[in-house]
Amino acid sequence: MELTSTQETILWAGTIGMALGAIIIAAIGFRLPKAERHHVTASFFVCAIAAVAYYAMATGLGTITVNGNEIFFARYADWVLTTPLLLLGLITVGIAAVAGGEAGRERAGLIGFVIGADILMIVTGFVAALDNDDDKYVWYAISCVFFLLVLWAVYGPVKEYVSSAMKPLYVRLLTILTVLWLIYPVLWLLGTEGTGTLDLTGEIAVFAVIDVIAKVGFGILLVTGVGKAAKHVA
Amino acid sequence: MELTSTQETILWAGTIGMALGAIIIAAIGFRLPKAERHHVTASFFVCAIAAVAYYAMATGLGTITVNGNEIFFARYADWVLTTPLLLLGLITVGIAAVAGGEAGRERAGLIGFVIGADILMIVTGFVAALDNDDDKYVWYAISCVFFLLVLWAVYGPVKEYVSSAMKPLYVRLLTILTVLWLIYPVLWLLGTEGTGTLDLTGEIAVFAVIDVIAKVGFGILLVTGVGKAAKHVA
Amino acid sequence: MELTSTQETILWAGTIGMALGAIIIAAIGFRLPKAERHHVTASFFVCAIAAVAYYAMATGLGTITVNGNEIFFARYADWVLTTPLLLLGLITVGIAAVAGGEAGRERAGLIGFVIGADILMIVTGFVAALDNDDDKYVWYAISCVFFLLVLWAVYGPVKEYVSSAMKPLYVRLLTILTVLWLIYPVLWLLGTEGTGTLDLTGEIAVFAVIDVIAKVGFGILLVTGVGKAAKHVA
Repeated sequence: MELTSTQETILWAGTIGMALGAIIIAAIGFRLPKAERHHVTASFFVCAIAAVAYYAMATGLGTITVNGNEIFFARYADWVLTTPLLLLGLITVGIAAVAGGEAGRERAGLIGFVIGADILMIVTGFVAALDNDDDKYVWYAISCVFFLLVLWAVYGPVKEYVSSAMKPLYVRLLTILTVLWLIYPVLWLLGTEGTGTLDLTGEIAVFAVIDVIAKVGFGILLVTGVGKAAKHVA
Repeated sequence: MELTSTQETILWAGTIGMALGAIIIAAIGFRLPKAERHHVTASFFVCAIAAVAYYAMATGLGTITVNGNEIFFARYADWVLTTPLLLLGLITVGIAAVAGGEAGRERAGLIGFVIGADILMIVTGFVAALDNDDDKYVWYAISCVFFLLVLWAVYGPVKEYVSSAMKPLYVRLLTILTVLWLIYPVLWLLGTEGTGTLDLTGEIAVFAVIDVIAKVGFGILLVTGVGKAAKHVA
Repeated sequence: MELTSTQETILWAGTIGMALGAIIIAAIGFRLPKAERHHVTASFFVCAIAAVAYYAMATGLGTITVNGNEIFFARYADWVLTTPLLLLGLITVGIAAVAGGEAGRERAGLIGFVIGADILMIVTGFVAALDNDDDKYVWYAISCVFFLLVLWAVYGPVKEYVSSAMKPLYVRLLTILTVLWLIYPVLWLLGTEGTGTLDLTGEIAVFAVIDVIAKVGFGILLVTGVGKAAKHVA
């Protein structure tokens, strides 16, 4: 895909934002007690993967042409890896670790449900982007159904496990995630892979801004929130 | 791939069967105690993934052309995800949850063996489908070796862990799975990706029937069986 | 890719070496106590996957052409699966199993960090191989950064958990892995996907030798080492 210099600049800004985010989250992580660093790992890789995906897009590598459509393949590769990690970050804040056994299996099943629905949401969204005819919107609708299953789980059965000590942080993170993630399907619909109401430059710019907030901003909030909660307990 | 209207109708029937299966399994799942719902998650996603794959095939999206061969790519994408989940469902019926530690690692290693062999079975089967010359049957044979490793594990080391309370359900599910799964390599060999003895319509029809039985039927049996066992214990 | 008969012979030797390695590791594994067999599973699949990848390359199937470059795709598919398994083997030697809870999560986070960095190392190395212009070396450098993160983790935080009983085996395996793995980036740089200093036959030959040592040799050492340690404890 031939990108304009404005588009390239935005993607470079995204690359730098994500790389800085990864470094900041790692730096905060070193000050957390060891038992909390698994949160840092998830948030760190969200930003590291996104930095690699943005770098690929900025240097013109992140696209493929399928059925005459040029698709930012790197975006979907990023999302299919980072959205499960973001949800894992949220859920491990909410659900305390248990010592295996039936309770462990029960919670693993719940985490599996959220991540399974999330991956199907991204994969069917990718098919929607590849598809040329009006079927595209059926795929889009299927993707939205899986998104609703994710939301149902994190507002319903997952939330029931959250202890009162972690509830304020869980609810804050959940609210931010919900608001930001609701922008994606709207933007997709307006952008070049949907109706084309928004031009490519606008699409790239808005995606870059919400991507950085949803990954770097969310990650920093999560990691510092967990750090404060750990200090409070200790 | 240009599909005839008969072929499309069969694939649509498969789509509806899988989608209904997912809904039925979810509905049964809500009546199970929470500790048993991880079984529901696995069986639900087996049907949900298959519904998406069948919808892709029905609307003409699920094929790729490699080396002049037209392959139902969606079939292999379905299988590489759903067969591990089906085996996971079987194994978690057989092997009780343990409280981590060495015993947990031992069982995780065993589950990893079954799922690793299963994924290699599907991937080498996919290479067999892509391959144009007689090497195809070497790949097919390699795929069968991995299938034998799966069978060895679920009839051997996995079965040793099954408690006497769960043994009847485990053996029933294992027998059904074995009979159904043995049809796949035979059908593959007879179908268009093998010797071409069976035409495409026949292949699509037989695959649709055994797919629905092996996913929807197996899933409903598993989930209701687990529900009854849980009631018996309680 | 048209391979010379020398190149094919080397790849066939690699196939046989890996397949024999898988069989030998499995045979040793049956003499280990059940609690230690998860180590065998990881080392067995490392060799089994590599055998399949080498067979694909030997029969001319393992390459793809992207941007005019012919790439041994099978090599990267092999590495993205086997390097996490090799690291998992090393780490599970070093870190004892714990009974879930916070300690389990802490260690799972650490294993996730090592494997996440490792997968990003392979994926960005694959992009470097696909890339045609000088950007290739930026991707190579990014891949090396993730390699350094892997090394940092296995020499730093992972090593801190290793008990004094397992330390000699862990350090021996870690040293071998480090020395062998350092050859890969050098070889890549000299080979046809880098500067082309080494010709394709030389590249295939050196990769085959270090692949067999790093997979079969490493696996046999790991499995026999674990067996001796188990006997010593018992």
